[in-house]
Amino acid sequence: MPELRFDFTTADWVVFAPLRKLRPHTHRRGPSNGGPDPLGGHPCPFCPGNESLTPHVIDQETEGGRWTIRVVPNKFPALQIEEPHERFADGPVFQRMGGCGAHEVVIETPEHTAWLANQPVEHIQRLIAVLHRRYVDLLRDRRFRAVIVFKNHGERAGTSLRHPHWQIIATPVIPRLLQWKHLQAQEHFNRTGVCLYDQILNEELRAQTRVIASNDEFVAFLPYAGHLPFECWIVPRRPQAGFGLLQPSQQLPLARLVKWVLARLHVGLDDPDFNLTIDTVAREDEEEPYFRWHIRILPRLTTTAGFELGSGVSINTVLPEEGAEFLRAGSADAP
Amino acid sequence: MPELRFDFTTADWVVFAPLRKLRPHTHRRGPSNGGPDPLGGHPCPFCPGNESLTPHVIDQETEGGRWTIRVVPNKFPALQIEEPHERFADGPVFQRMGGCGAHEVVIETPEHTAWLANQPVEHIQRLIAVLHRRYVDLLRDRRFRAVIVFKNHGERAGTSLRHPHWQIIATPVIPRLLQWKHLQAQEHFNRTGVCLYDQILNEELRAQTRVIASNDEFVAFLPYAGHLPFECWIVPRRPQAGFGLLQPSQQLPLARLVKWVLARLHVGLDDPDFNLTIDTVAREDEEEPYFRWHIRILPRLTTTAGFELGSGVSINTVLPEEGAEFLRAGSADAP
Repeated sequence: MPELRFDFTTADWVVFAPLRKLRPHTHRRGPSNGGPDPLGGHPCPFCPGNESLTPHVIDQETEGGRWTIRVVPNKFPALQIEEPHERFADGPVFQRMGGCGAHEVVIETPEHTAWLANQPVEHIQRLIAVLHRRYVDLLRDRRFRAVIVFKNHGERAGTSLRHPHWQIIATPVIPRLLQWKHLQAQEHFNRTGVCLYDQILNEELRAQTRVIASNDEFVAFLPYAGHLPFECWIVPRRPQAGFGLLQPSQQLPLARLVKWVLARLHVGLDDPDFNLTIDTVAREDEEEPYFRWHIRILPRLTTTAGFELGSGVSINTVLPEEGAEFLRAGSADAP
Repeated sequence: MPELRFDFTTADWVVFAPLRKLRPHTHRRGPSNGGPDPLGGHPCPFCPGNESLTPHVIDQETEGGRWTIRVVPNKFPALQIEEPHERFADGPVFQRMGGCGAHEVVIETPEHTAWLANQPVEHIQRLIAVLHRRYVDLLRDRRFRAVIVFKNHGERAGTSLRHPHWQIIATPVIPRLLQWKHLQAQEHFNRTGVCLYDQILNEELRAQTRVIASNDEFVAFLPYAGHLPFECWIVPRRPQAGFGLLQPSQQLPLARLVKWVLARLHVGLDDPDFNLTIDTVAREDEEEPYFRWHIRILPRLTTTAGFELGSGVSINTVLPEEGAEFLRAGSADAP
């Protein structure tokens, strides 16, 4: 049964989910971690025909009677909707609460070995619509304070199953890092009257050296102080604080830019492992002026080591100006 | 030339060190990353006889005319003492400063394939003395605001060279994560009059369920809300805020406990990759009552994925009570 414990030294909540060590990709090292198919001979639970291996369907897209995108509860959840929401004290500096939340899997495609960058742009558009629908639906549950949408691609990005999928986790607390980012943006807005992310976007568009692609609705760039080599952001041109504000007319332009950026990373860096996250506000702030939701694509080319874990400071070996030049080079088509 | 850039969205300084991608262990994937010896046929720069492959000696321990521990500047530094210390503005939300700092390597032993857990306790004691000497010496430079002492063991922990070594990085800013941890402890002290780390230590000693070993000077335990499976802390019983306050009489008891804990991890988890960091205060707070320096040992059994990167929340699959029971089991000798 998952639970959250509060770390007094960092003010972080930590999720304890002993069930997750039962996943096919276990935490102990061994041959099953190294191979391309950690399940060995077991059938893939995300492939068509194996639908009985996953819990019930939450949402899906279909075409010609077959599903093309499928949302199911995670079988090894970090948080569970049935868990209690109450706080418990195990001592004056030992606080915990029940692991109440949601953990869903969005199966991206029926194809086991597909890459998102190779999908038709219309399929990516439908995927964005599904992610948005689930995000908005989960925000309706008043027990949840934040909804995190993300994708892990490749073993170095923490994928346990090869079949392309996304995950959505709703948490009963606002994670401290999100609170902190929101606070930075709020204080910037208080001091300047300008949304920090507006200003960053405008300055990046003015400088152009880190912008890699754009269209009428979105801009993709490698941020000035990105923490990882080739870290890439996709930011809407519209002033939308929360991802929930995404309009249907923005979905196709977003799909085109996501496809373009992932294809450039795929070609330029030889299919790098990466994480993708959608950064947004807590529910009650969806329409506040201080923030702008955005996508972060985080290639996992380097390993976090003792300095990063000890100090929290990232060491980035690639200047974003150079990374952007590398990714732009040789690209003819525009997104 | 390294530089620091300020991330306005998180208030973090990020180190940009393009030189470090020239290390033998590069950021691009390929055969050289996978093998046990990423240098291939090249001689190890940390082995006896190859001293000319490293820059000048900063400090060393010798026995019978040969070095047993050796401190040299990092050949691929994240920060450099020759760099400027000034701030530059590239725009209203683009701030940077020169990469002034220090980056040293402490070669742990002349033996290329040694494990710290197998070293004689007297050698570990001398190693602790060297680390302490370098820490105190670097703190004397008024340009440096924090000194981070750490060790990376194994590829999943970010090691680029197999030969056992530690690293010390002095930064011209107090890293935001450290500031944040210090603030949490300061506020706890303000509210309760008690050092947070004293209280945690006392509560762990009272509960006993997460304590794995102790002696007259130090206690080792798996913290109540540890972020990683088998994360282990070693905390001094004396109220010392800064690592600089470590007394010679504490070095042998610390060496015994470090050896014991690393040996239990080595045996129990089959030589796991791990990071080790020494958490301490900024220079001016070495004697403040709100903090207590401690060692964190962070086994790298799991991979940080999109949820952790998106939310900052860790998912730990092993309860510390269970991890502690596992590590204690079958151990006869006491540290």
